[in-house]
Amino acid sequence: MMKSTLVIEIIGMIAGVCTTISFLPQVIKVIKTKSTEDISLWMFILMNTGIALWLTYGILLNALPIILANGITLVLSLTILWYKIKFSR
Amino acid sequence: MMKSTLVIEIIGMIAGVCTTISFLPQVIKVIKTKSTEDISLWMFILMNTGIALWLTYGILLNALPIILANGITLVLSLTILWYKIKFSR
Repeated sequence: MMKSTLVIEIIGMIAGVCTTISFLPQVIKVIKTKSTEDISLWMFILMNTGIALWLTYGILLNALPIILANGITLVLSLTILWYKIKFSR
Repeated sequence: MMKSTLVIEIIGMIAGVCTTISFLPQVIKVIKTKSTEDISLWMFILMNTGIALWLTYGILLNALPIILANGITLVLSLTILWYKIKFSR
């Protein structure tokens, strides 16, 4: 029982690392190219709203993988949104 | 106790709807413009891997918001990855 809980936690942690890290190459690309034309503004408005709510959900459930993953993801995703708005002017 | 569990489930559901729906404007944009230059390939490789693992995590925890959100998100995110690879040639 304890072992299977640990396995689930580890899968959640790896999932969180992947989806969190996934925003990093996009952040780097946007900073490098200063081009955000193909990126959807609405994707990142909705994404940031959703991630903020996932963070709330994780805090209320006291689920560490959800809290860690979404906390960091929110910072990265807000960065992309900021560049999208900045370079769209 | 039952009431607070319901509130947490509802927050999770809204979070899932936001992050899931967020991929839709990007899918529509990519189909319309056929341009994916500013989109990071590595973002969507890592994103799809991560979402598949979140889906596994949700199934193992029997957490409906996580299962629903990540199941649909995986389809949308795979669509963006497919177009990114297709239009990059």
